[in-house]
Amino acid sequence: MSESAAEPRRDQETSRIEAFSDGVFAIAITLLVLELKAPASDVAHGELWAHLRDEWPQFAAYLTSFAVVGVMWVNHHSMFNQIVRADRGLMFLNLLLLLWTALLPFPTALVSEYLGEGGADAHVAAAVYSANLTLAAIAFSLIWAYAVRRGRLLARPMSPGAERASVLRFSVGTFVYAATIALSFASAPVTLAVQFLIALYYAFEQVRSRVT
Amino acid sequence: MSESAAEPRRDQETSRIEAFSDGVFAIAITLLVLELKAPASDVAHGELWAHLRDEWPQFAAYLTSFAVVGVMWVNHHSMFNQIVRADRGLMFLNLLLLLWTALLPFPTALVSEYLGEGGADAHVAAAVYSANLTLAAIAFSLIWAYAVRRGRLLARPMSPGAERASVLRFSVGTFVYAATIALSFASAPVTLAVQFLIALYYAFEQVRSRVT
Amino acid sequence: MSESAAEPRRDQETSRIEAFSDGVFAIAITLLVLELKAPASDVAHGELWAHLRDEWPQFAAYLTSFAVVGVMWVNHHSMFNQIVRADRGLMFLNLLLLLWTALLPFPTALVSEYLGEGGADAHVAAAVYSANLTLAAIAFSLIWAYAVRRGRLLARPMSPGAERASVLRFSVGTFVYAATIALSFASAPVTLAVQFLIALYYAFEQVRSRVT
Amino acid sequence: MSESAAEPRRDQETSRIEAFSDGVFAIAITLLVLELKAPASDVAHGELWAHLRDEWPQFAAYLTSFAVVGVMWVNHHSMFNQIVRADRGLMFLNLLLLLWTALLPFPTALVSEYLGEGGADAHVAAAVYSANLTLAAIAFSLIWAYAVRRGRLLARPMSPGAERASVLRFSVGTFVYAATIALSFASAPVTLAVQFLIALYYAFEQVRSRVT
Repeated sequence: MSESAAEPRRDQETSRIEAFSDGVFAIAITLLVLELKAPASDVAHGELWAHLRDEWPQFAAYLTSFAVVGVMWVNHHSMFNQIVRADRGLMFLNLLLLLWTALLPFPTALVSEYLGEGGADAHVAAAVYSANLTLAAIAFSLIWAYAVRRGRLLARPMSPGAERASVLRFSVGTFVYAATIALSFASAPVTLAVQFLIALYYAFEQVRSRVT
Repeated sequence: MSESAAEPRRDQETSRIEAFSDGVFAIAITLLVLELKAPASDVAHGELWAHLRDEWPQFAAYLTSFAVVGVMWVNHHSMFNQIVRADRGLMFLNLLLLLWTALLPFPTALVSEYLGEGGADAHVAAAVYSANLTLAAIAFSLIWAYAVRRGRLLARPMSPGAERASVLRFSVGTFVYAATIALSFASAPVTLAVQFLIALYYAFEQVRSRVT
Repeated sequence: MSESAAEPRRDQETSRIEAFSDGVFAIAITLLVLELKAPASDVAHGELWAHLRDEWPQFAAYLTSFAVVGVMWVNHHSMFNQIVRADRGLMFLNLLLLLWTALLPFPTALVSEYLGEGGADAHVAAAVYSANLTLAAIAFSLIWAYAVRRGRLLARPMSPGAERASVLRFSVGTFVYAATIALSFASAPVTLAVQFLIALYYAFEQVRSRVT
Repeated sequence: MSESAAEPRRDQETSRIEAFSDGVFAIAITLLVLELKAPASDVAHGELWAHLRDEWPQFAAYLTSFAVVGVMWVNHHSMFNQIVRADRGLMFLNLLLLLWTALLPFPTALVSEYLGEGGADAHVAAAVYSANLTLAAIAFSLIWAYAVRRGRLLARPMSPGAERASVLRFSVGTFVYAATIALSFASAPVTLAVQFLIALYYAFEQVRSRVT
């Protein structure tokens, strides 16, 4: 909007990608509530509070997925503060990230339904949930690696050292998520708690390392 | 867009926060309709009008929640007319507000289902609804207190007196909402009516005290 | 953005109202699809096409509501091309319009469910649908009458004659919609067809009278 | 925003059309997840993974529709990079495209439910799905033909040869989609796979022919 002629034009595609992505993040985070089921009135008769308490897994899953999508939204913005130009490749890698974001209400519903059941089904539900987050983390890494490699997409070129460090940092996140798939088969509730804590970590880690 | 160089740059994050928040407000207010259930055709046989009349609690809950989210949207804008810079702390406090906003269709469904039942379940449903609004009011207060304390986030610094008055004003609102949790155990329908009236009050109060 | 200092500043609230309204229009028009029910696979066994044909009322209701919301979106823009300033009163009248817009999927579901049943229930469903559209038309009229009376909200002041003519024109639309409530008790399918034709009329009427 | 006075003003309607369309694309692509059904916990007992595997048609349909809407979003932008002015005719042709986009979750649900059944119902479900995409392709062609014919809507006038070539190109796409309706009656799973491949083709084809 106030660019000198010498500087290459910031591709308008990034603001479109951001607007579309923000739309999908906002819709996905708000749709999560549709997976919360109110107990039917002929079931509760006088025990609504007890029924709501028994349904704690659906509230825990809701809260975790809300935190995950919220932090993804914040970090997507951080990333697109540095990525200032777009091409079709970036657009489709971003669609891949949105695929896993938009899908999240489904494993959230699985966890809501099966966490309280325990047993093999709870493990499978937690593993599907963790796999979804791992795939989202991979998509995040791919977007970043793609943008870094095609340096001209970035606001400022990075030194090879900084480049390697930033890609490595994303890879570590991906491996942590992949490890939660294995953890799911040990304990489904612990896995959900860990997912919530990882989201909190990414919230605070960003505050420290990027803004300052 | 037309800022002098002397004035500190208005952080673009606030327009992003507002756009994302507007998205969540717009989606939450429109999703409420999905909680309205049409009576099945094999139930109504020739008595559709009577069935719709019997389901007045779901329409009352819909209208109240629509008014609440609508007024929240207006007041969120009022607040972000005064908050012109953002940091990560503000971003996450705002996500906390969006959490309670996006959750509202769930207690709305509880009230729709249980208000007509009466008894203990109606009280619990109204109390959960009131608790949700109380948590939203607390989040509003936290955003404001945070922005006021970090004065540089505001468009104009406030005098210590005005600062204390504005924070106090939010606290009063929070206490009123907290009182509706207690009221829920006296009468669920009265509680819903009071929530609707509080929303109307905030609509008109804003017109008087902020715009002029 | 390019205003001379002499001219009063165009209130930014109108672009916010338009963005929020566009959000609600876009969500309401897209949510309509959730009211379309796929026949269960154990019901269809080999007769899916026949079952889909039998469910023509839900497709007719979907198409009509899509046309209604689409035309409302276009005409809302026409109106806000002329309304360039906003105050809180306008904001709340606009929320009233959004209330009836966001509610439309509910009477659409009623018509989908009861149009094929015939009898008293079909009449009630069509009447509720028509009442919803009448209330939306009233809200449109109120917004326009309010903006015209407070002339300073308009881009260009209108002559008293043009003012009276434009308000009258909205009133006629409202009476036409009110008449469809009565028509509902004569024939529900004819009422739905008339609603579709009124939407088409408003689409073309706009093309002729406003753009040129 | 930075136009010389000589150049005709770019009609603001295109940015509104794009914003509204982006909203509908973002909502439709995110709503698809609501058609994914988690198996009920009393059905799965210990066999959740097997049940999820058996429901592969719903995941295949989800993925295909996600790819289709994603590519439609990208190509809608490509088209509106060249269309810089709008009139009411374009606005309503665009609404026609949004009608078929917003409807897509319904045939997606049909395919999810019936693909695994096989037989006549699977063929009908695939044919309805293919018909929906054909109608969307026709709407795309109409928008382009309309904009080309009214040359003043385009950023740059086209030579008659380029004009004919571009309209022809859209027509070919429409015929390919129409052919998938026939294919549906040969094999429903193959049809779904072909739809996915056509979406991929349009993704890559765009990368080659438009950006460079």
